[in-house]
Amino acid sequence: MPPSHPHVAVVGSGTAAGDLYEQAREVGRLVAERGGIVVCGGLGGVMEAAARGATEAGGTAIGILPDEDRGRANAYLSFSVATGTGQARNLAVVCSGDVVVAVGGEYGTLSEMGLALKVGRPVVSLGSWDLGEHVAVAPSPEEAVGAAFGLLGV
Amino acid sequence: MPPSHPHVAVVGSGTAAGDLYEQAREVGRLVAERGGIVVCGGLGGVMEAAARGATEAGGTAIGILPDEDRGRANAYLSFSVATGTGQARNLAVVCSGDVVVAVGGEYGTLSEMGLALKVGRPVVSLGSWDLGEHVAVAPSPEEAVGAAFGLLGV
Amino acid sequence: MPPSHPHVAVVGSGTAAGDLYEQAREVGRLVAERGGIVVCGGLGGVMEAAARGATEAGGTAIGILPDEDRGRANAYLSFSVATGTGQARNLAVVCSGDVVVAVGGEYGTLSEMGLALKVGRPVVSLGSWDLGEHVAVAPSPEEAVGAAFGLLGV
Amino acid sequence: MPPSHPHVAVVGSGTAAGDLYEQAREVGRLVAERGGIVVCGGLGGVMEAAARGATEAGGTAIGILPDEDRGRANAYLSFSVATGTGQARNLAVVCSGDVVVAVGGEYGTLSEMGLALKVGRPVVSLGSWDLGEHVAVAPSPEEAVGAAFGLLGV
Repeated sequence: MPPSHPHVAVVGSGTAAGDLYEQAREVGRLVAERGGIVVCGGLGGVMEAAARGATEAGGTAIGILPDEDRGRANAYLSFSVATGTGQARNLAVVCSGDVVVAVGGEYGTLSEMGLALKVGRPVVSLGSWDLGEHVAVAPSPEEAVGAAFGLLGV
Repeated sequence: MPPSHPHVAVVGSGTAAGDLYEQAREVGRLVAERGGIVVCGGLGGVMEAAARGATEAGGTAIGILPDEDRGRANAYLSFSVATGTGQARNLAVVCSGDVVVAVGGEYGTLSEMGLALKVGRPVVSLGSWDLGEHVAVAPSPEEAVGAAFGLLGV
Repeated sequence: MPPSHPHVAVVGSGTAAGDLYEQAREVGRLVAERGGIVVCGGLGGVMEAAARGATEAGGTAIGILPDEDRGRANAYLSFSVATGTGQARNLAVVCSGDVVVAVGGEYGTLSEMGLALKVGRPVVSLGSWDLGEHVAVAPSPEEAVGAAFGLLGV
Repeated sequence: MPPSHPHVAVVGSGTAAGDLYEQAREVGRLVAERGGIVVCGGLGGVMEAAARGATEAGGTAIGILPDEDRGRANAYLSFSVATGTGQARNLAVVCSGDVVVAVGGEYGTLSEMGLALKVGRPVVSLGSWDLGEHVAVAPSPEEAVGAAFGLLGV
């Protein structure tokens, strides 16, 4: 039975502007419109944009922060947790998703894609790292979210 | 300025019955009635009871799990995250609270009280470890939640 | 069969002077003289003193650091590792010991005592937190190390 | 000033046989012969082979385990630590190296390469993931170790 409220981890760089920011925001919006919950790393850039898109659409966005407190949480999160474990919070982000959508992204995103695959989460890439057949590649936010929900059977 | 929705981490044993369970449930209820959010370790016992009390009162409970997935989340959580870091999730639980209420508890609870104090969170004990002047001792759920909100200035 | 080279985690405050420093140094020396390996948090104070005692006696001291690099390792460690997980490295320190000796100590030490008990490591207190029957109390470095090795059956 | 005993994190799959095992063993041997210390994840496959090569050559190999105890440490480690944090120990492995050599490898290795790059460690690939210009590619153990030491300026 597929989850009734799929958790979609949206990962990507902490700095994003222009098209990349808008793409992540669109991903968040589409996840929320389909009844999903956005999980992200809680900071800026792609994380903020995905949370923003989800909550602007009336959905829920949860941020999982690397810090010992919730002070750096972006302004668009419904809820945030603080792990206190630095980059090990990347593991928590992907473990908390039923599927992972990588939007653009730098080295931290790469680590999240690797961790996701290691713990058995399917990964969709929207302009992110090219990891061959291990990752589903989507050319647009619509197709990325479609692929993510499709991978979950919902 | 005190937080508008204080996060109260409720920590305690993963097995609890009878009075202990009801005390934790009452703590959760009272936190929710005062507008607070319950954060807990997401499993059974005190964690379940606190989440149950909060959501039965119309509030929110967030569970932070030690596992690589959300499968063991108790049935009363509003949301759950999975850290994949075992007992290191205890650090995430206390970092995610603005204040910590320990209800009964065994060794894991002791570790959470120590971690909370280490990262600067005030701790209230309701029938938990006696740590002298480092912890506020409360004799009832009402007084424990009162002390917790008092320590936050709300 | 007891371990041939018992790992003794020595935990305590990152600042220590005078008697406390000398006690931790003596603990490290005695562990090394009995063929044990000292494991510690790798920084200053009690951690440094225990490592110093061990290596001055020709033994081995391993430091497990909270940081993303080994830059803050004290000068007396044989080897150091960097966890990058902040206070979650306290869990690694106690998991890496077969037994834990707490020398003095503040909140971080309390967290380590709780985590040690949670993961099933016996704990010896030398002037550290009073946790009742859960911890063996020793009045001197000699008796602390004796108790630690006794608890391991060596 | 380059480190006098560079720590080389050797990462790769927990199962390895034949050529892959021998390549990792050769990497370990060469690191030890140049005065380096091998750091690895402490389990089998590439981790075991690298530790074996290092200690067979008279060098030192440190294993950083995901478990709460050191029970699964491979037989060729000089020392081992247990983090208790599951796959978050991958972060500790790469943080503990001054440079990272990836030998073959599956998803866990990919996560280690991403984490290494995130925390600023140079990465050498010996038959591992193709990450473009972000990673130095070496065709043999000799060239991989040469590249690793070269990246450290030693």
